[in-house]
Amino acid sequence: MSRAVESEAPSSDAGPSKNALKKAAKDKEKAEKAAKRKAQEDAQKAASAASDVSSHDYGDLPTVGLTPYTPSGVHRITLRELVAQLPPTPSGSGALHAEEASAEPEARVALRCVVENARVQSAKLAFLVLRQGAESVQAVVAASETLSRQMVKFAGGVPAESVVLVEGVVRRPKEAIKSASVGHLELHVERFFVVSRSESQLPLQVEDAERAIPAEGLEGKGEEDDGRPIVTLNTRLEHRVIDLRARHNAGIFKIKDGVCALFSEYLRDKGFVGVQTPKLLGAATEGGSNVFEVTYFGKKAYLAQSPQFYKQMMVAARYEKVMEIGPIFRAENSNTARHLTEFTGLDMEMAFEEDYHEVMTVLEELMLHIFNGLRTRYAKETELVRSIYHVDEFKLPEAGKVPRIQFPEAVKMLRGAGEQIGDFDDLSTPQEKLLGRLILEKYSTDFYVIDQYPLAVRPFYAMPSAQTTSAPLSEQYSNSYDFFMRGQEIMSGGQRVHDAALLSKRMKEFEPPLDPTHPGFKDYVNAFKYGCPPHGGGGIGLERIVMLWLGLPNVRLASLFPRDPVRLAP
Amino acid sequence: MSRAVESEAPSSDAGPSKNALKKAAKDKEKAEKAAKRKAQEDAQKAASAASDVSSHDYGDLPTVGLTPYTPSGVHRITLRELVAQLPPTPSGSGALHAEEASAEPEARVALRCVVENARVQSAKLAFLVLRQGAESVQAVVAASETLSRQMVKFAGGVPAESVVLVEGVVRRPKEAIKSASVGHLELHVERFFVVSRSESQLPLQVEDAERAIPAEGLEGKGEEDDGRPIVTLNTRLEHRVIDLRARHNAGIFKIKDGVCALFSEYLRDKGFVGVQTPKLLGAATEGGSNVFEVTYFGKKAYLAQSPQFYKQMMVAARYEKVMEIGPIFRAENSNTARHLTEFTGLDMEMAFEEDYHEVMTVLEELMLHIFNGLRTRYAKETELVRSIYHVDEFKLPEAGKVPRIQFPEAVKMLRGAGEQIGDFDDLSTPQEKLLGRLILEKYSTDFYVIDQYPLAVRPFYAMPSAQTTSAPLSEQYSNSYDFFMRGQEIMSGGQRVHDAALLSKRMKEFEPPLDPTHPGFKDYVNAFKYGCPPHGGGGIGLERIVMLWLGLPNVRLASLFPRDPVRLAP
Repeated sequence: MSRAVESEAPSSDAGPSKNALKKAAKDKEKAEKAAKRKAQEDAQKAASAASDVSSHDYGDLPTVGLTPYTPSGVHRITLRELVAQLPPTPSGSGALHAEEASAEPEARVALRCVVENARVQSAKLAFLVLRQGAESVQAVVAASETLSRQMVKFAGGVPAESVVLVEGVVRRPKEAIKSASVGHLELHVERFFVVSRSESQLPLQVEDAERAIPAEGLEGKGEEDDGRPIVTLNTRLEHRVIDLRARHNAGIFKIKDGVCALFSEYLRDKGFVGVQTPKLLGAATEGGSNVFEVTYFGKKAYLAQSPQFYKQMMVAARYEKVMEIGPIFRAENSNTARHLTEFTGLDMEMAFEEDYHEVMTVLEELMLHIFNGLRTRYAKETELVRSIYHVDEFKLPEAGKVPRIQFPEAVKMLRGAGEQIGDFDDLSTPQEKLLGRLILEKYSTDFYVIDQYPLAVRPFYAMPSAQTTSAPLSEQYSNSYDFFMRGQEIMSGGQRVHDAALLSKRMKEFEPPLDPTHPGFKDYVNAFKYGCPPHGGGGIGLERIVMLWLGLPNVRLASLFPRDPVRLAP
Repeated sequence: MSRAVESEAPSSDAGPSKNALKKAAKDKEKAEKAAKRKAQEDAQKAASAASDVSSHDYGDLPTVGLTPYTPSGVHRITLRELVAQLPPTPSGSGALHAEEASAEPEARVALRCVVENARVQSAKLAFLVLRQGAESVQAVVAASETLSRQMVKFAGGVPAESVVLVEGVVRRPKEAIKSASVGHLELHVERFFVVSRSESQLPLQVEDAERAIPAEGLEGKGEEDDGRPIVTLNTRLEHRVIDLRARHNAGIFKIKDGVCALFSEYLRDKGFVGVQTPKLLGAATEGGSNVFEVTYFGKKAYLAQSPQFYKQMMVAARYEKVMEIGPIFRAENSNTARHLTEFTGLDMEMAFEEDYHEVMTVLEELMLHIFNGLRTRYAKETELVRSIYHVDEFKLPEAGKVPRIQFPEAVKMLRGAGEQIGDFDDLSTPQEKLLGRLILEKYSTDFYVIDQYPLAVRPFYAMPSAQTTSAPLSEQYSNSYDFFMRGQEIMSGGQRVHDAALLSKRMKEFEPPLDPTHPGFKDYVNAFKYGCPPHGGGGIGLERIVMLWLGLPNVRLASLFPRDPVRLAP
């Protein structure tokens, strides 16, 4: 149990100002007016309730949990279950011919759902679109001998986004309904209660959040061609709880969770053990300049930039195959569409027997398992998101046929396309994208690996390549690789140095040199002194995979509550 | 790709001191001696290699990855596979009678493993225990016409914990071998290579790490009754990479991962979506005094103490069932066996229809799924750990029969056992433990729920109970519960206030009062303004469950690299 103990400091000791007194008087006046209005309304309500045949069939429910619970005995259905019970007719439209429509109702149902919109058509008729997740259905509230006009007015006036409990009968409409996702069914309301009433003014309409974010430069345009307001990414993120209600956003985050599930299930099946390595470190390690500093009981601590050291230490601790899904913190002051200061890393590390391509094979199969899983299990969500952010279908190679391009070959392809690049230069982002197009042309795949990167462009723990051991350091390659999707890197990995002496040597000859006895490195280097198998692995950025799979224009769209140098809320 | 860019500052500008010059002379002398010694050894080696029939069958391998790779074509087996191929004989001992033992070898194998220990029996015979995970096997290196004495000496002299590659034939020994876990097989070595040589002096023996940590007060005793040194928890944690090699430690962390897997699979199957909520917050929220402060681009940020607010905001964002596995940070300066400053939270939150006991039922079934999964899938690991830390079998109730004790009933039981406790007092830790014993006696279960806690001892977001709405605040109950294992709380949860106005009211009447417009609360409170279903959930401490399941004496034993107020490394 934890209690909130944050206290508020009183803001000022001075007495009330003149303005404050004025405001107080005004507030009092307002309150009196409101009380008077309420009394009138109450009297009206009482009068109309007396003459209201439906008075027990609609209204605002008391807060669930605050009133004694008596089981209603009414089974609540989901729209998905309802459609499964009453599928569209084979004709396609799902609607019935006129003579059939007047038939007996198909079912009597109760369901909790959200009001997508409500409108009073006339004193006797209101229409609502009711939503549950990605599904919606039209509801009709029609006055009759047993359903009062007061109830029609009440239901038609409920603010969008309110949570309601509806009971009624289901009929097949004469014509397919276009305003709801379930076009072949219509709900004829008999009871209608508000479970949780929304404020009527929303800071952001869900409907507007269900459009693509404006392209760069168009944020200030004001409105779309169809007259709807243009809502910037920033506005959406400010009101993220409403923004996340957009159907395609639910799709994005189901897919994101799907990637995690596919990652874990594949690796667990191969004998990997999930681990939780520490995020609080006593000393900065890799890239000391990009770590967040934490005040730790009067001392300093740092947030982990990656589980790299710890996952390798786990291999040294005889856990031959480990994986981790966890947060990654990067104190990079980059305000781009591709950078977050907090994101999710999917990491793996494993011992291998003879050659580091054993690791590469596992990683390739893992990625294909994820891609194929997204295709088969998340086709609906993928389609939904792509209907808003258009992108070409992702081209996959066959299993065992992922192109492995040697770095010198990549350089040659780039030169063939007119690029200027040195033999041991790192690839620039535009070069990576160009290479993606060249490889797509040549191998018909958006997914491939580049192998044997120059040693000088990799971290100090990358194993130097056997191909170039006698060359000067600046002309050596390394047993390391990057994985790409659509010309963008999604994973970096390789064989690591598993020998403490070699690791120390590599650190000292690194540019700039690193000190193996530094508190941030000492435990890591020592881990390799007592027998460690050869090993390698890789780390994937979860948000980046989701972004590239779906062709999202900004990585923030793949983070529930994104963090960047200027955003820490909500 | 990320490069390590940490730079070292030069430590001093002064010239070398007298001592330094002396030291340099000494170092030079040492180096010369070492070079001389090495030259002698090399000469000896060359001479003996010439007369060594096994010279190509043993030695230190070059670093894997640094030399060109040619596939060996030799399949490497695991001990587990080997035992599956050659199970013990039905007689039980697994060993064969003398006449059978001289038969043909059972198999020819190659395997990579770790030297648990090696000893030279005579110039012609060495014994090793080779280990892979929790399994070990005895290996014999015996001189013959085709196996030199030099090779016997080399293999028998390899330091413990070295990683080796061994080839040979498998035979069933005459008598079961007691020093290895696989007693019915023996490996007769023909080739023996060191893949990664351990330093010969280990700061901690794995054997010593495979014992229980000393009971409090016994840390300074020096040695166990059998003469082995007593190794304190602190020493083990200092050298955690070696400590983690202990067999029971591997068991603990397999079980820990098992809890995560069981948690996810159960909830995913029920339609829960995994989420990643932010760990970096712009303002401190719950329990502001116990949060870690982070320097965030010149401003302040805070580490999340729990995903509580965000998982509820996800429900408000129409994700009706969410779960999260992630780090939890608590800046509590508590140096006890039960506290960590960083641990793993298993969280869930869900909308419900009529009553919060719907949530409780899901949580009970979830916990039973986890406990039963541990029993069936992790029986071996559980047994292994319990062989070191003895604990009674965990008594489980049947599904649907988890005792739900109402808080007033718990108070009554405690009073019946002589405890003094007020009607609305929180339970103390000793009272919780006593209650655990009373409930075990009465209901024969170590797992149960206490329901309807007093409102005043719960967080402000707990939904007040319908039972006591008209009572003074200090005499109200709440729709909240704690789950217990063996008298210790493992989960806290309940129904949350899903109405913004009620939530603000509860915050203002809280003791001490909280400000709903404070930056740490504003987005959370606002999330409930636009329609939110009734919901509830719970949060489980992963390390705590593992500790209680296994009866571990310290929660640090359930954390790979534990963090407490004085420990941030390794």
